[in-house]
Amino acid sequence: MDYFRKSYYKDADAKTGCCGSFKVEKPMVLGHESSGVIVEVGDAVSSLKVGDRVACEPGIPSRYSQEYKSGNYNLCPHMAFAATPPYDGTLCRYYLLPEDFCVKLPDHVSMEEGALVEPLAVGVHANRLVDVKFGDSIIVFGAGPVGLLCAGVAKAFGCDKVLIVDIIDEKLTFAVEHGLATHTFNSRGKSFDDLMKEIKNIWNEDGLPTCGIEATGNQTCTNMCIRALAKKGRFVQVGMGPDNIDKFPLAAVMEKELTVKGSFRYSVNDYKYAVRLLRDRKLNVKPLVTHRFKFSEAIEAYEFSKKGKSIKIMIAGPE
Amino acid sequence: MDYFRKSYYKDADAKTGCCGSFKVEKPMVLGHESSGVIVEVGDAVSSLKVGDRVACEPGIPSRYSQEYKSGNYNLCPHMAFAATPPYDGTLCRYYLLPEDFCVKLPDHVSMEEGALVEPLAVGVHANRLVDVKFGDSIIVFGAGPVGLLCAGVAKAFGCDKVLIVDIIDEKLTFAVEHGLATHTFNSRGKSFDDLMKEIKNIWNEDGLPTCGIEATGNQTCTNMCIRALAKKGRFVQVGMGPDNIDKFPLAAVMEKELTVKGSFRYSVNDYKYAVRLLRDRKLNVKPLVTHRFKFSEAIEAYEFSKKGKSIKIMIAGPE
Amino acid sequence: MDYFRKSYYKDADAKTGCCGSFKVEKPMVLGHESSGVIVEVGDAVSSLKVGDRVACEPGIPSRYSQEYKSGNYNLCPHMAFAATPPYDGTLCRYYLLPEDFCVKLPDHVSMEEGALVEPLAVGVHANRLVDVKFGDSIIVFGAGPVGLLCAGVAKAFGCDKVLIVDIIDEKLTFAVEHGLATHTFNSRGKSFDDLMKEIKNIWNEDGLPTCGIEATGNQTCTNMCIRALAKKGRFVQVGMGPDNIDKFPLAAVMEKELTVKGSFRYSVNDYKYAVRLLRDRKLNVKPLVTHRFKFSEAIEAYEFSKKGKSIKIMIAGPE
Amino acid sequence: MDYFRKSYYKDADAKTGCCGSFKVEKPMVLGHESSGVIVEVGDAVSSLKVGDRVACEPGIPSRYSQEYKSGNYNLCPHMAFAATPPYDGTLCRYYLLPEDFCVKLPDHVSMEEGALVEPLAVGVHANRLVDVKFGDSIIVFGAGPVGLLCAGVAKAFGCDKVLIVDIIDEKLTFAVEHGLATHTFNSRGKSFDDLMKEIKNIWNEDGLPTCGIEATGNQTCTNMCIRALAKKGRFVQVGMGPDNIDKFPLAAVMEKELTVKGSFRYSVNDYKYAVRLLRDRKLNVKPLVTHRFKFSEAIEAYEFSKKGKSIKIMIAGPE
Repeated sequence: MDYFRKSYYKDADAKTGCCGSFKVEKPMVLGHESSGVIVEVGDAVSSLKVGDRVACEPGIPSRYSQEYKSGNYNLCPHMAFAATPPYDGTLCRYYLLPEDFCVKLPDHVSMEEGALVEPLAVGVHANRLVDVKFGDSIIVFGAGPVGLLCAGVAKAFGCDKVLIVDIIDEKLTFAVEHGLATHTFNSRGKSFDDLMKEIKNIWNEDGLPTCGIEATGNQTCTNMCIRALAKKGRFVQVGMGPDNIDKFPLAAVMEKELTVKGSFRYSVNDYKYAVRLLRDRKLNVKPLVTHRFKFSEAIEAYEFSKKGKSIKIMIAGPE
Repeated sequence: MDYFRKSYYKDADAKTGCCGSFKVEKPMVLGHESSGVIVEVGDAVSSLKVGDRVACEPGIPSRYSQEYKSGNYNLCPHMAFAATPPYDGTLCRYYLLPEDFCVKLPDHVSMEEGALVEPLAVGVHANRLVDVKFGDSIIVFGAGPVGLLCAGVAKAFGCDKVLIVDIIDEKLTFAVEHGLATHTFNSRGKSFDDLMKEIKNIWNEDGLPTCGIEATGNQTCTNMCIRALAKKGRFVQVGMGPDNIDKFPLAAVMEKELTVKGSFRYSVNDYKYAVRLLRDRKLNVKPLVTHRFKFSEAIEAYEFSKKGKSIKIMIAGPE
Repeated sequence: MDYFRKSYYKDADAKTGCCGSFKVEKPMVLGHESSGVIVEVGDAVSSLKVGDRVACEPGIPSRYSQEYKSGNYNLCPHMAFAATPPYDGTLCRYYLLPEDFCVKLPDHVSMEEGALVEPLAVGVHANRLVDVKFGDSIIVFGAGPVGLLCAGVAKAFGCDKVLIVDIIDEKLTFAVEHGLATHTFNSRGKSFDDLMKEIKNIWNEDGLPTCGIEATGNQTCTNMCIRALAKKGRFVQVGMGPDNIDKFPLAAVMEKELTVKGSFRYSVNDYKYAVRLLRDRKLNVKPLVTHRFKFSEAIEAYEFSKKGKSIKIMIAGPE
Repeated sequence: MDYFRKSYYKDADAKTGCCGSFKVEKPMVLGHESSGVIVEVGDAVSSLKVGDRVACEPGIPSRYSQEYKSGNYNLCPHMAFAATPPYDGTLCRYYLLPEDFCVKLPDHVSMEEGALVEPLAVGVHANRLVDVKFGDSIIVFGAGPVGLLCAGVAKAFGCDKVLIVDIIDEKLTFAVEHGLATHTFNSRGKSFDDLMKEIKNIWNEDGLPTCGIEATGNQTCTNMCIRALAKKGRFVQVGMGPDNIDKFPLAAVMEKELTVKGSFRYSVNDYKYAVRLLRDRKLNVKPLVTHRFKFSEAIEAYEFSKKGKSIKIMIAGPE
């Protein structure tokens, strides 16, 4: 049938109605991690045709903003982002997107993988922001979906050592089993010295991690991640936490001349690169989908997600 | 007479015996901001001759460290730094330095200016670290010697707007009178909103500062400086504070995708560029010298410095 | 009166009807270096109002191209550029431009200076492309309008030494008299060795130029400019010559690990920065205007320009 | 037995006695691509011990040069390079090297692979110079040892498409069979248009190569390689040709705003990264060794190399 088939994942905001400064004030369609099938194209569209399977980029910036013009459309103040009030999300039968915000999926990439391009693009953006590449090694805090994908991208981008840190063994095991990280550290009840001891064991003559990604939003993790880096190391915060944090290790940033950045969504080429990672099988995102629901069961899917027993839940497109 | 003539400035460490992790445990010669006259050169020296007046770089790294080899000798773990235990300082008649750590002073640059090359190089390094140049504008917190010089370098590097922030009006006035800043803000009793209002007045259609330098070591200043920046802005911490700070505005770093760096001393070409700034009269450091003492009065100079009535105190070389 | 007042400068293409691959096939309005007064604004325009004096950016890219989105709209294949077939130029009473392609002129910047923002932006773009800044020094080949402006921008961006090379003494004198360069070299009948001798005299202990700009389109100049650079030097070609050139010094590029770039028009922020240079009086472009014509004398202006006795000819806006 | 075991490869200079400006004027030991076993270490050596197997970096710069200090020791004018007059090469029983110019080989990396670290480091340096990484794709001219290794490194650094161009089918087949390239083009008798047609077939919706490496030294190849690049593409010349070349496509460099660089040997971290590529099995260099000779047969090895039937010839260390 000719319809937009989409898969979705619930967001944290589904629980509280809030996400940062955004507040849901009236009924709103959810969903911003999705793939679909093209059912209609405008006259000027040349790169896509009806039937093409695509990953859907959920935020459309103004084409006229200084941010867009400068290559940073993720920072555009006029962004219309799916499922961010007042914009409805993608969990629906038909959804309208500009041509260049749809990225074609190769035949061997599934619709579910296409829906995971969104969080994968978050990982691509963060890694590109601190220019992770061959010669680098990385420590990633947090083995939730975003942390896992950040780690997997770092590995795909050339890091020989990808140490992932979390407090749940199952998550850590998952990361290594599916090739998203090379080493793990369970930080529950462990000190910073314990971490450094482990890092020295792993890195050995290669020194210390040159890069760090924080994907939990916890300030103690930010502190440890930054302090674990080699001189001239680069750190990027991906996990959202409070506006201001305590225990920020500014002396370490100075003494090692570190670079600290913050990552916000994704921008030029990130979606394209994420699809390319899947196309070339540089990393495997499929195991992240732990549960599946029909479109008509979407409510149950959201209810289930609150139990915290899933990594990623897929909702199939409408029949 | 054939001797090393040097001028010095007391350091904060003169009061407490401590500076970071360094502790003075036995009598030590002080001084690391100095200029001198060459009295003797080794056989292999080709760029300097007896009688040359030079600015003296006070820290000599290992020529074999990975940091030195990579262009970051300021981070060399084997650094021998003047007046940093166990190394004696430069407040003496003769001082030994490698050829390439002496930067020749042009005829029209005085010995006192030569001694100020050290803090000026701190400003050069910080500005180069975040690549301040034409097209940028900057906010600098702290109008002490380092803040003033960071501001002056930013202006010399091309910033059209240099807003300096402090709580003492005299310092702010000094900054503008001597061309080291273009605008001032006295933050005593003022809120962040007050600051932003003032910035908007000054920047107007030019938006917000693209760069920020914090030169007080106070965490509230770090917080305000970072939050005041434009999207994609670059911040560098120069003022030493506690190891960990509170109120670090991590959400702002993320939402604007800012870059935060820490600056440590100076490295390749910083001294050379600092001398070039003086040579080309790109900024005037002379007014910073508010008091002068003879070499034989050095103790009095240090005592006087504790009163906080001076900007920079010069101690002349031994007669 | 309510009209678009514009000033213009004839182009090389006025003589031959050709400019690169572009060919004039039917009558076309000329002009792409212009300033104007706003006579009408659309509803959505917020930064400009009727009566504002603006510099007019002559090329409008597609807002949807990958180049525009990536921050390189000068390379957009859908560019509609004034006076480039099939697009009419700006030498007319009314001209339509998007808001963000008009840059407001400060009160103290004249309409003629506003018209010179176009070639000035070429110089800004070229200098930004190779990141000219304090600490750099430069050699510029060609003292025509573009070469002069490239040199002046390099000086404004912080180069302490700006050596301009041409074969006409008057042009060289002009450059130094108006502060657009610091040194000159008349290369008529001179060898590369002669040039290097002169450079060594000027640069002395500062080594060799770190940057080079070629603004004549002559391949011998390209050769000499590149070979004159310091190790790791950066070169940018601005002058248009033949598609392929001979005598390209590839061995020098390798042995010194030089960077060679080509500059094409201007892109994000270049116009804005050019206006800022004028606003802050960082360089003086007024002396470049050597002749003036009324709007009704435009034909004479173009005829006159062929004589080669002018630097820049201004045509006033229609009365 | 305790001796320095080395393997060697003859150089082009073995035939003519000349290499660039260098000329052999008296008998000289050859060899600069070598590995060895540590037989003795100085008192201060901490990272190596007797018996360690190492790749030997053949050029030792001055520790005091501005180039070394700036992170570009390959450009040091005081470089003492093995088998480059007046310095003897490494084809001998014992050879003296500073600790940090020996890179330890992991157990599973053979001595022969260790000897190939030298040309591999050339490929690493060239790729790092133009910052090849995930998201890039590349065209490499020349399937000789250096071209093959440049291609292999580009692939290891993340290029999804590595098109290698040569005029000998066997070499092209070799490249793909051993995973050093993904696609090939035999340019014998082919035009630039033919090449572009093939590139468009391969790249398809991914556009054009973003990077190019020229490893033949032939000016027609330089021309084609540069013209084949995407807008904003980066090119690096690795193959040594004449001092000045003809047919340099300067208009293409301008119209696409390309970056052209030259690569010279290798510098900080290149050897280390090359060993890491072998350690992590990111590329396989073993097949390049097509012939082997005993140390006592070194003369025959050099004679044989002139026949051009080999890729790399290994000479075993002395017994």
